[in-house]
Amino acid sequence: MKGLKGALMFAQSGGPTSVINASAAGVFIEGLNSDEITAVYGAAHGIRGILEEEFYDMSKEDIKELELLKTTPSSALGSVRYKLKDASVDDTDYKRLLEVFKKYDVRYFFYNGGNDSMDTCNKISKYMAKSGYEINVIGVPKTIDNDLFGTDHCPGFASAAKYIATSIMEINLDAKVYDTPMVCVVEAMGRNAGWLTASAALAGAKGLGADLIYLPEIDFSIEKFVKDVQDVCAKNGNKCIAVVSEGIHDANGKLICEVLGQTGARDSFGHAQLGGVGIQLASLIREKTGFKTRGIELSLMQRCGAHCASLTDIEETFGAGREAVKAAVAGETDKMVCYARKEGDKYECEYKLLPLELAANTEKTVPLEWITNNGTGISDEFVKYAMPLIQGETNLPKEDGLPRFAKLKKVLVTKK
Amino acid sequence: MKGLKGALMFAQSGGPTSVINASAAGVFIEGLNSDEITAVYGAAHGIRGILEEEFYDMSKEDIKELELLKTTPSSALGSVRYKLKDASVDDTDYKRLLEVFKKYDVRYFFYNGGNDSMDTCNKISKYMAKSGYEINVIGVPKTIDNDLFGTDHCPGFASAAKYIATSIMEINLDAKVYDTPMVCVVEAMGRNAGWLTASAALAGAKGLGADLIYLPEIDFSIEKFVKDVQDVCAKNGNKCIAVVSEGIHDANGKLICEVLGQTGARDSFGHAQLGGVGIQLASLIREKTGFKTRGIELSLMQRCGAHCASLTDIEETFGAGREAVKAAVAGETDKMVCYARKEGDKYECEYKLLPLELAANTEKTVPLEWITNNGTGISDEFVKYAMPLIQGETNLPKEDGLPRFAKLKKVLVTKK
Repeated sequence: MKGLKGALMFAQSGGPTSVINASAAGVFIEGLNSDEITAVYGAAHGIRGILEEEFYDMSKEDIKELELLKTTPSSALGSVRYKLKDASVDDTDYKRLLEVFKKYDVRYFFYNGGNDSMDTCNKISKYMAKSGYEINVIGVPKTIDNDLFGTDHCPGFASAAKYIATSIMEINLDAKVYDTPMVCVVEAMGRNAGWLTASAALAGAKGLGADLIYLPEIDFSIEKFVKDVQDVCAKNGNKCIAVVSEGIHDANGKLICEVLGQTGARDSFGHAQLGGVGIQLASLIREKTGFKTRGIELSLMQRCGAHCASLTDIEETFGAGREAVKAAVAGETDKMVCYARKEGDKYECEYKLLPLELAANTEKTVPLEWITNNGTGISDEFVKYAMPLIQGETNLPKEDGLPRFAKLKKVLVTKK
Repeated sequence: MKGLKGALMFAQSGGPTSVINASAAGVFIEGLNSDEITAVYGAAHGIRGILEEEFYDMSKEDIKELELLKTTPSSALGSVRYKLKDASVDDTDYKRLLEVFKKYDVRYFFYNGGNDSMDTCNKISKYMAKSGYEINVIGVPKTIDNDLFGTDHCPGFASAAKYIATSIMEINLDAKVYDTPMVCVVEAMGRNAGWLTASAALAGAKGLGADLIYLPEIDFSIEKFVKDVQDVCAKNGNKCIAVVSEGIHDANGKLICEVLGQTGARDSFGHAQLGGVGIQLASLIREKTGFKTRGIELSLMQRCGAHCASLTDIEETFGAGREAVKAAVAGETDKMVCYARKEGDKYECEYKLLPLELAANTEKTVPLEWITNNGTGISDEFVKYAMPLIQGETNLPKEDGLPRFAKLKKVLVTKK
């Protein structure tokens, strides 16, 4: 509803990204400048901070540090993995949230997260409406996985994609340096959606990509993989770079890391090897070919490598936070902020609002028609889609040659 | 000897670094501008390219691309791992080198590499002198390991250190984001010398470092490690970040990755786990504590992450290449270019020359007095030593938001 006056509560959830705090900065800065908003709170560790009345008074922070949040990775307020039950089954948490919202006169609630968090946000919004408590609730998306429905892309994806593409270009140069065989298997995140793995194609567009790219959208066959690698090696002076998603699975849906963990890629000591599937597959290729191999897991770095973030992503993500506050103050509720790409050759993006229930729990995967070369390649459509998103370099300030990340005071609000 | 006129041959060897090509750029650009130098050749894959008469005519390259070598990682000419035999045992290769040098009138030879390469360079220099063939031979150091004797630091170390410190700061923020236990074990390169692993202390100086740092200079005890982690967790809300060198070993000198591979850290499927020792140790901690853990191998990225290179390193490394040519033209031979740090508070570095036989095959490790806290910490002396080296950001040009690395034509010299 419009004309609401009261406090703002913002919470972060799920796995962090390089730019998640840019949305926090947007919400805080817009909130602190709004006449309708009487206080700006940031919940410690997501929904848990609200349930336990642990939240910070963001007006106590130095504005310079809030600005630095734009270029500071990981969730500055702390994150949480906590799924609210259905209110119809158990409404204990919802009652408690309502109690806290009432106690601190919270009239604006912003939840920053991925699929599950949009579901949480939706449930809270519905419960508050049913209870007759006036509050505007807006979801702010974030996920490197880029799998949220209804938005052209997700805040955080582009920076991870830029990190992955940059690293693959560098790995490409490094892995091909000797005149001896070398197979490199790089593993990117993404359990069900292959957007991050597909980002290897951006490196490919610059001539320094991967020879083979495997997404979880397509069933993975270990036998075919070995043959694919051998075919590339035969053509390519026994050099091959493959990129796989952590979530690749066989035709029965079983994760390849589990298949290999149980049936046994064996290392030079004769032991079954586990860990990232990239490392397992590299070990398997070594066993099958005798070639030198290397498995590389891009691990946490791909989601926290803020020093390599996309300026486009930072600015859009900051804008998403501001837009959420503007929309809520204008009376919107029960919505998620989305990105809509404008038609035309030049990349432009605008914000739109989507009902939360549409955003929640629907995973958007890479279109199958973008997966080419018998499941080992990515089409130019993907490159055309993703390349504009990684443009621009972070303006992350440095101190002594190292990142100067935001330092928040985190002044807890006194419990009432 | 002085006043030599003839061709220049440059070759790269050993593991690449983020800035190794900066020395190549320095040698080529200085060589192309020298009146004494009649041709500038770059050997394909190090010494092998000379033995097989496969080398490129660098005068055919666009000067802009040669300049881009400064910010292009990995060995642009290709590298090789080839150790020359002692000439007294088998002088076949030496005879062949001499033959090729004569055929192409090579009077200046520059070899760019680490310990082994300086040994190779030294052997070649001695053989040529003994044969009475007039040639000036200069070694250009490179190694991320920073373990070359006689130089304050090694070209390439600082950029790897900057990458590691930056990544650890980012991992620190990411790994501590939840309100649940988390132990992260990060593995850096360095088999015998712990310089790279010690770089985690640079992140520590910014308040976002590791709780525990283990170098190969000190015998590693698995039992002590588990206790160290448990102690940190007890004090620290069950959060701990440890950084280990790939080369950590027990009191008998046995690598920990072998100890764990054979006696069995077991993963959730009950299988012995191999791969990086960081991943093994993370798995061990999970087994002992039940905590969530993550093993992270910085892998090739630490040595090829040119997007995060140190400008100081780039400039010094470029200068080392130029200095090598200047020294050779001035009549120096059988030397390696070294860095000498000037006394005083402000960091300044100058080039010196060291006899090759002193540089070859002596490993410089981290001084034991810089290792503190019962083998788990690094002293401020290290930070004071290393911090000046990582200053300044690379001016690596971008194209479409991705690195624009050098593209060489690689025009092979026609075999005579």
